[in-house]
Amino acid sequence: MAHLLELTQQGDPGTIVDESQLDKIQLQNPQQLYELWERQQWQAHGIDLSRDPADWQALSDDEREYILWGLSSFFIGEERVTTQFSGLVMAYEDQSEEAYLATQQVDEARHTQFFGRYYDQVFSIGGGIDAQLERVREHVNDAFVRLFDEVLVAENKRLIADPSDRGAKIDFITTYMMVIEGTLALTGQYTITTFLERRGILPGFIEGFQNISRDEHRHVAYGTWYLQQAVRRDRSVGERVQAKLAELLPIAAEVLVPPGCSLEDEWEMFGFTRSEVHGYAFQALSRRMKAIGLGIPQLV
Amino acid sequence: MAHLLELTQQGDPGTIVDESQLDKIQLQNPQQLYELWERQQWQAHGIDLSRDPADWQALSDDEREYILWGLSSFFIGEERVTTQFSGLVMAYEDQSEEAYLATQQVDEARHTQFFGRYYDQVFSIGGGIDAQLERVREHVNDAFVRLFDEVLVAENKRLIADPSDRGAKIDFITTYMMVIEGTLALTGQYTITTFLERRGILPGFIEGFQNISRDEHRHVAYGTWYLQQAVRRDRSVGERVQAKLAELLPIAAEVLVPPGCSLEDEWEMFGFTRSEVHGYAFQALSRRMKAIGLGIPQLV
Repeated sequence: MAHLLELTQQGDPGTIVDESQLDKIQLQNPQQLYELWERQQWQAHGIDLSRDPADWQALSDDEREYILWGLSSFFIGEERVTTQFSGLVMAYEDQSEEAYLATQQVDEARHTQFFGRYYDQVFSIGGGIDAQLERVREHVNDAFVRLFDEVLVAENKRLIADPSDRGAKIDFITTYMMVIEGTLALTGQYTITTFLERRGILPGFIEGFQNISRDEHRHVAYGTWYLQQAVRRDRSVGERVQAKLAELLPIAAEVLVPPGCSLEDEWEMFGFTRSEVHGYAFQALSRRMKAIGLGIPQLV
Repeated sequence: MAHLLELTQQGDPGTIVDESQLDKIQLQNPQQLYELWERQQWQAHGIDLSRDPADWQALSDDEREYILWGLSSFFIGEERVTTQFSGLVMAYEDQSEEAYLATQQVDEARHTQFFGRYYDQVFSIGGGIDAQLERVREHVNDAFVRLFDEVLVAENKRLIADPSDRGAKIDFITTYMMVIEGTLALTGQYTITTFLERRGILPGFIEGFQNISRDEHRHVAYGTWYLQQAVRRDRSVGERVQAKLAELLPIAAEVLVPPGCSLEDEWEMFGFTRSEVHGYAFQALSRRMKAIGLGIPQLV
């Protein structure tokens, strides 16, 4: 993982350990986050993958299947968050926000490209991204489908139908940056990256995934900034955010459950127990909520 | 200007001097253009502008007014082509095209950011991009308003309403990549960059504008590729492209007319005569049409 300082510099309060000042924190605004993006370019097609195929071949069938399960949700998830994002781009309120939002959409496209290249060159699953996505669909569970194919798609459509609908924008940002990116993606990235680093394998994947993680922290920083401003202007927005969290966090918790397990089982994910996984996700979400000026619904 | 070889590497056939092979040319596809984008990152906020303010102050009032007129159409144009683009992003036909289209939208946002920074730091016109755009609006003519505020906006809305409408996509690409970028922007960029290079002034602006021009050639390459494929699949698409050109080229010709002149006058623009300006625009458009497999309507 990138160093904590580096992540904190992304402006994501989920990474801040001293929580006492969170409700007074000055978050980076979209213009600052746009400029940060300019300084943090990376090339999905430029990362050295030369060591990864031999590492991959040396794993057992079970290990390969397990890693493929873990990564496939990310691959499909990246496609979903790229293509279901134009509604938010259209919902910009000034030119700085518009510029920032365009950076986020291209980040998601770059993440999809990284997975496409990796599946092709390391996992020998090729044929182009569309064919790859069809093939890896078998790895996702019902909660994933509900969150990414139903909730996210419907919320994007509401914004496209009326980009000036601020309630729809609050819902979309809560779903996308707080739940999908902040709670699910960053938790999965933390566990998988830590697992691979401990094993000392797949260095090309680790490098790409760390870049993806850095991008996601910047995205979550934007979402936290937006919700903080919105709640400060109108306290009733807070109830709306919490209602959306109460609706989606149980679904998100199901997304993380490994195949063959149920939510209540004492499952492990990449060397982390269920309670460690949930604890990591919960702590980061709770810090972000505190920066927004809200508590967190007691669900997870 | 960037070297010809470099521009040709963008895949824009408008830059190819040997026209005999144009109808057989293998254009770069969206996946290749996406990967090219990854290698051509640049920072609007990273360009050295330290020499430009002194150059600017040394110009006469008339010269400053003239340059401001020339650049303001670009500044507003960049905002327009950024914010009126989500319809095409939504109209992607596969993941490679989606990724490419996301790069183009963020390119346009980066161009707007460059102008915003430049107006602030060199022209001392600040207050944020929204305030700047309002202030420079006085410099654009009626044809500009017709093309950027009416035609482009309406065509983007048609695509948003139905991203699967291939006719609307053909119209949008013809308007945006063939007319606005290929005919207007690249011509204006050529004349202004040449003018400033001959005068040896505003090196920071020249550097940014060259990067913008490189991006635009990549965008026009995409549009040319898309129309070439579409015409090869269905010859009737060619009639649609030509009808759109016949509608818009007279408007585009008016956009280029300097203030106080009319289309028929023997005006000059940044040291180029009317016929040189039109000749440059026409030649590039005609090469691109040839690569698509079409003639050009006899209008310009």
